[in-house]
Amino acid sequence: MHDELLIKGQAAREAARQLAKLNTAAKNRALQVIAETIMEQEPNILAANDLDIEAGRANGLSEALLDRLLLTAPRLESIANDVKKVANLPDPVGEEFDSRLLPNGLRVSKRRIPIGVVGVIYESRPNVTIDISALCLKSGNAAILRGGKEAIHSNRALAEAVRLGCETAGLPAASVQLIQSTDRSLVRDMLRANGLIDMIIPRGGAALHRFAIENATVPVITGGMGICHLYIDSAADLTKVTPIVVNAKVQRPSVCNALDTLLVHKAVARQILPRVADALGQYGVELRCDEQAMEILHDYPKAKPAAPEDFDTEFMALIAAVKVVENMDEAIDHIYQHSQNHTDGIITEDYSNAMRFVSEVNSSAVMVNASTRFNDGGQFGLGAEVAISTQPLHARGPMGLTELTTYKWVVFGSGQVRE
Amino acid sequence: MHDELLIKGQAAREAARQLAKLNTAAKNRALQVIAETIMEQEPNILAANDLDIEAGRANGLSEALLDRLLLTAPRLESIANDVKKVANLPDPVGEEFDSRLLPNGLRVSKRRIPIGVVGVIYESRPNVTIDISALCLKSGNAAILRGGKEAIHSNRALAEAVRLGCETAGLPAASVQLIQSTDRSLVRDMLRANGLIDMIIPRGGAALHRFAIENATVPVITGGMGICHLYIDSAADLTKVTPIVVNAKVQRPSVCNALDTLLVHKAVARQILPRVADALGQYGVELRCDEQAMEILHDYPKAKPAAPEDFDTEFMALIAAVKVVENMDEAIDHIYQHSQNHTDGIITEDYSNAMRFVSEVNSSAVMVNASTRFNDGGQFGLGAEVAISTQPLHARGPMGLTELTTYKWVVFGSGQVRE
Repeated sequence: MHDELLIKGQAAREAARQLAKLNTAAKNRALQVIAETIMEQEPNILAANDLDIEAGRANGLSEALLDRLLLTAPRLESIANDVKKVANLPDPVGEEFDSRLLPNGLRVSKRRIPIGVVGVIYESRPNVTIDISALCLKSGNAAILRGGKEAIHSNRALAEAVRLGCETAGLPAASVQLIQSTDRSLVRDMLRANGLIDMIIPRGGAALHRFAIENATVPVITGGMGICHLYIDSAADLTKVTPIVVNAKVQRPSVCNALDTLLVHKAVARQILPRVADALGQYGVELRCDEQAMEILHDYPKAKPAAPEDFDTEFMALIAAVKVVENMDEAIDHIYQHSQNHTDGIITEDYSNAMRFVSEVNSSAVMVNASTRFNDGGQFGLGAEVAISTQPLHARGPMGLTELTTYKWVVFGSGQVRE
Repeated sequence: MHDELLIKGQAAREAARQLAKLNTAAKNRALQVIAETIMEQEPNILAANDLDIEAGRANGLSEALLDRLLLTAPRLESIANDVKKVANLPDPVGEEFDSRLLPNGLRVSKRRIPIGVVGVIYESRPNVTIDISALCLKSGNAAILRGGKEAIHSNRALAEAVRLGCETAGLPAASVQLIQSTDRSLVRDMLRANGLIDMIIPRGGAALHRFAIENATVPVITGGMGICHLYIDSAADLTKVTPIVVNAKVQRPSVCNALDTLLVHKAVARQILPRVADALGQYGVELRCDEQAMEILHDYPKAKPAAPEDFDTEFMALIAAVKVVENMDEAIDHIYQHSQNHTDGIITEDYSNAMRFVSEVNSSAVMVNASTRFNDGGQFGLGAEVAISTQPLHARGPMGLTELTTYKWVVFGSGQVRE
């Protein structure tokens, strides 16, 4: 194991023990101080960001990636404000639930506690450094952050602001630590740092998630990607179809809850597909169509025949796959075969079809007559999210503060022994 | 991957899809039929068990291990009755929770669903085959079971009864499948069967758990072992101490929630330790004592000086380590250093000490004035348990039916799109 990780891991372990004892007021105060420190450190942070932008330009990063990397005064203010918002969210730590009084008089309940040390491995966007710091601190966890090489100067300056804020507010300096080394083998060490890190959240593309699953001995939260489907049922209200499909595809095409595959019942395909294609066409969306959809959309300039792999592709771009299905069975089967359990939805006015779709499709979020873009912590009212989980264990869908906690059983007795 | 695992994994995947759709009545009927089938199959099962017992005797298994392996008519009846008890437990699947109506009119909730395919790797006790089958079926999961080589004939006969019962009740025959091969490399394949198995529960010793953590790419539930501490505070009610300590240590010393280390505040050590030693002595308990405890117990025939590793040993036997501490800080620090997050308790009448201990010790169960032996699904009122988790994610402490489920977000809309 890299020395840096060993030293920071042990410091994080000790910080986590202290953080777990803090009350909500102390944590909120620290978040306020961190938000102020970020604003005070603005010149340093923006200067550091300049270095990353220059290096990125020299390395030929695309304008889109440079924009993801860029910090500006308004963006930094918005980042600091988000920290204050986290301070205003309810603290899940300490909540007692599933309480019961046993026949022998034992009073038993589950009590929420922090997970401990959370490791986060992420890519270029520097705002993640602050988002994760705020969510981990509010939930009483220590954090070890490993950001992308392209953002290293920005991340160092941001993490330094967090460290200063923690110290000023009386929290352990090691509450949030950024890995300084850009050595790639350190990622593997983080994934295997049992005893030092309790949970790893990879935030990045499919390759990072695969690498994490293959190499981790620490529990990993996987997600943040997946092929999202919308099924237009024969009983769909056609006036709802176009707004939902357009929103799901174009409102922010580069994110994980954007629409990838449109499934259309054959009874309405001729009527609805041209309208949808027209609406999507205004945004330049390319449609990759199965044979039946192609027959309907042959005049549409952005339609082209789909290759089989198009139905297994998360496009992250203004592209959608389109398939005409015989019935809802075929739609549900297609989703079962191709979904990666992120977000899938149905558009229908038929009560039984809506109920059956919601019952049989087991993605992290299943929608009726709503855009797939709603699978999001902010939208669902969690206040913020650290990731979207698509795996079965611990948490599914948007992970907010509560999902950064675990629980212990607390038992109050008066001398009970087991028979 | 072994062909057997690939074939059974794919069948389990399909069975899981069917099981997830069953209502509670159908699952309960199947469990009743399985209980009846176990009784009908009694001659086959006991004959198969004879083969295992003979082989075990020939291989020199200890009488204790042979007894764990042994099935008798009354034991089988009790196993079948436990299946009926699981039928009578509430079904967690379908429960909706954390429901909210969002400002835009979206109705959002979490709905409990089965995890999918649960893989269980266990050692000699054949009753586990039926326990796990019943709990997985009731929670709508398919199961792939890998039992110990010593119990292979018994496990085959028991799994065959489950299969017959499932078929009779109209459930998929592949709902519960036993791995027939005793090839050890198949365990590693199970741990890496992503896409076929959703969660692995190892039930066995430390070596199995270490192997699982090191090799798994499928999420693993670890637990079922740990060093359990009881701290006797200076404000302990001395009349409660001996019954609790004796119960924790001797009621069933071979299990994971039995007492391992006794920590005693120095102010009461001289008064209480001889009493505790006398009471434990009646059961033949050996005490491994730190220097101060040894000084107090030097006349006690079963007391001997502790080696440092005794405070890191889960004894699973009539042995306990004993340490005198300066104060509660030292007790909590000792537990922090040596606990493996299973079960730790305090005996005290001091309100603030009780509250502080419960707040600062973060084991899967933390007890005040009660035996450590209560950390158990049956005792906590869960009805049954599939394992005791000591890891931070997904579930901690006893895992019952609810802990064999996950959830999806269900969103009912009326055409909402994201701003």
